[in-house]
Amino acid sequence: MEKKVYITRRARFNAAHKLWNPRWDEQKNQEIFGKCSNHNWHGHNYELHVTVKGSPNIDTGYCMDMKDLSDIIKEFIEEPLDHKNLNLDVPWMHGKLASTENLVIEIWNQLEDPILNYDCELHAIRLYETENNYVDYYGGQ
Amino acid sequence: MEKKVYITRRARFNAAHKLWNPRWDEQKNQEIFGKCSNHNWHGHNYELHVTVKGSPNIDTGYCMDMKDLSDIIKEFIEEPLDHKNLNLDVPWMHGKLASTENLVIEIWNQLEDPILNYDCELHAIRLYETENNYVDYYGGQ
Amino acid sequence: MEKKVYITRRARFNAAHKLWNPRWDEQKNQEIFGKCSNHNWHGHNYELHVTVKGSPNIDTGYCMDMKDLSDIIKEFIEEPLDHKNLNLDVPWMHGKLASTENLVIEIWNQLEDPILNYDCELHAIRLYETENNYVDYYGGQ
Amino acid sequence: MEKKVYITRRARFNAAHKLWNPRWDEQKNQEIFGKCSNHNWHGHNYELHVTVKGSPNIDTGYCMDMKDLSDIIKEFIEEPLDHKNLNLDVPWMHGKLASTENLVIEIWNQLEDPILNYDCELHAIRLYETENNYVDYYGGQ
Amino acid sequence: MEKKVYITRRARFNAAHKLWNPRWDEQKNQEIFGKCSNHNWHGHNYELHVTVKGSPNIDTGYCMDMKDLSDIIKEFIEEPLDHKNLNLDVPWMHGKLASTENLVIEIWNQLEDPILNYDCELHAIRLYETENNYVDYYGGQ
Amino acid sequence: MEKKVYITRRARFNAAHKLWNPRWDEQKNQEIFGKCSNHNWHGHNYELHVTVKGSPNIDTGYCMDMKDLSDIIKEFIEEPLDHKNLNLDVPWMHGKLASTENLVIEIWNQLEDPILNYDCELHAIRLYETENNYVDYYGGQ
Repeated sequence: MEKKVYITRRARFNAAHKLWNPRWDEQKNQEIFGKCSNHNWHGHNYELHVTVKGSPNIDTGYCMDMKDLSDIIKEFIEEPLDHKNLNLDVPWMHGKLASTENLVIEIWNQLEDPILNYDCELHAIRLYETENNYVDYYGGQ
Repeated sequence: MEKKVYITRRARFNAAHKLWNPRWDEQKNQEIFGKCSNHNWHGHNYELHVTVKGSPNIDTGYCMDMKDLSDIIKEFIEEPLDHKNLNLDVPWMHGKLASTENLVIEIWNQLEDPILNYDCELHAIRLYETENNYVDYYGGQ
Repeated sequence: MEKKVYITRRARFNAAHKLWNPRWDEQKNQEIFGKCSNHNWHGHNYELHVTVKGSPNIDTGYCMDMKDLSDIIKEFIEEPLDHKNLNLDVPWMHGKLASTENLVIEIWNQLEDPILNYDCELHAIRLYETENNYVDYYGGQ
Repeated sequence: MEKKVYITRRARFNAAHKLWNPRWDEQKNQEIFGKCSNHNWHGHNYELHVTVKGSPNIDTGYCMDMKDLSDIIKEFIEEPLDHKNLNLDVPWMHGKLASTENLVIEIWNQLEDPILNYDCELHAIRLYETENNYVDYYGGQ
Repeated sequence: MEKKVYITRRARFNAAHKLWNPRWDEQKNQEIFGKCSNHNWHGHNYELHVTVKGSPNIDTGYCMDMKDLSDIIKEFIEEPLDHKNLNLDVPWMHGKLASTENLVIEIWNQLEDPILNYDCELHAIRLYETENNYVDYYGGQ
Repeated sequence: MEKKVYITRRARFNAAHKLWNPRWDEQKNQEIFGKCSNHNWHGHNYELHVTVKGSPNIDTGYCMDMKDLSDIIKEFIEEPLDHKNLNLDVPWMHGKLASTENLVIEIWNQLEDPILNYDCELHAIRLYETENNYVDYYGGQ
């Protein structure tokens, strides 16, 4: 039985950030990023959906134990991001603009390898910045 | 860096409509559309998700500024549809049955070109008619 | 055991309406009600929460069977309001402005007596017009 | 007009289950499934999204009448699963581990043929076990 | 500063139950409780809101540390109820009909004393059985 | 007609903050506030519900125009708080711990007077910090 299913685990983290391009002056940052460039930061309750593709195991009925997936997300994403400043506190975001687009790509990069240990592959990352804005990434070029 | 991400903006509009085929008589409309054919209209809080595909810009971290996407949706969708009658008040719905299926295709047609100005392409339209019913459209034939 | 609990049943109906005061001219209606006064109507997915106060019965554990409460809401509220025009199709809204405030009071008036047959009393009506606007009513003066 | 749209109907059912592999002893089941293996069962409010692909009919504007889709889901899924025990009460789950992954595949198998009668095809099944866990299935190998 | 605020913590647990009165025969149970009386159980994702009343402490800004409130709910409610059978596995529900009404009263009884240790008092318990049904309890007669 | 209804308007703002008592040293702050005391801030999508009590006007059916209520919330709450740092950027939060409890009281203080201009009175403020935590305040001692 090699039927492929897609399992998704939701997680959340609360973080501060600002949108600021250090190669631009104050005026240009304000012009492009508006209130998102506030020096003193602002923040969000980010909501993350991690989707993994695999086949249900004959003995467990699991594609991958949701508890294991949850533990991986906790170790690689929640620990470094929750109650943190995305611009200052996260080594793998250094030198990158803290946009949702860039964040979702880097979250993929953190999760791709740990999930390969489970006979499954990472399929999609969805990240909600607000109830009105979210970004999906499916890896690859 | 040519990685493709998919950004989604949610919007809402409140509109009246009815399902009514003018080529059919009263009885046939009632038989096919039931209470949705009520002469005096009914209405919905429609929820719209517009998904755009593109690559994050190196200087902004943006695929496309969500503010620009929101402005396009306001101009081309919310202005003509919000607090309106979908059968009577919307020129580009004239002569079409005001089903969610037809509406989602016409919303695509309104948004496709304006988004092309942004180095991005429209990828998907999702439209919720109620919490239990929604329609997705990805363009093409 | 005379402990009082409050049970709530959620229901939904989709209706058209407009805000229009027939004692005012066109200009005044437009000035006060803005786009809500559109001649051709608009509409909403209304969400209703009906809260009833009573004591759990020793034999059933029920304050009032949720199925009975649901049936009462269907008969007295959903039947007359769902897929209807609140200004034209609902006898008990005739002559009243179809605001959420007035609607919630009239819904109370429809439900108060039928619930008294169940050793319970109506405690509150909450009506959501959109995800951003709702009105509560607790009866009385 | 052969444009393809994807319509989705949401449904819900409340059921009991446990994760238990009869080829394993008590200790092994407890080790693999943890609290999900509780002898006395636990349960969930499952939320199901059924997505059907088709073209809007020229006369109705419908891909497939949502009422028909809802009736099919009621007959083939809600009737056999709602207020039932997934391990004991559902013939087509006998001999299978009652995981969300296996459940979503079997729900597909129940729905695939009835939908073919409507000039449409089943496209996707999404099943939420909790607000944090869900599984998607698109059929095929 | 003796201003009173009401803080609420949300928690969740997944449990099996049935509605069954042992003083009644099979037929009467079926007549009163319908599908909720299924011998083989069914279940729910219960959602619990615990509201505590108190004044913000001058040094912490807290009425009561949400972490402490969360720990109390985990110890006294989630541990005994999550992934359990409400009729069989919960000593303080023995001999009581496992209705939401009775459950909410017993949850109050479990939480009232532990919260008194925090210069606060339990104010309300809300328990959602489904998205359409919930019960509130404020203690007292 | 002097029936009292309670109208609620929902608003949202995204802000950074930290919990930090300047009268305590680093170690004590860490001990009491844990990860919420992170020097570099974290943030939230706050969701605000403002409830106003009044009687429906005979001419408008309104207790108070939701548009006016929305404008007041924008001017007095969203403008000063959205995309801001609650500890640094908000004059009326200076010297106060940026807890949800204190924030909800100060939001009340900002809104109470402007609403009195409308033949209505402020009844309640609810503020969600996350989907699991919220605080209500009804004014008074």
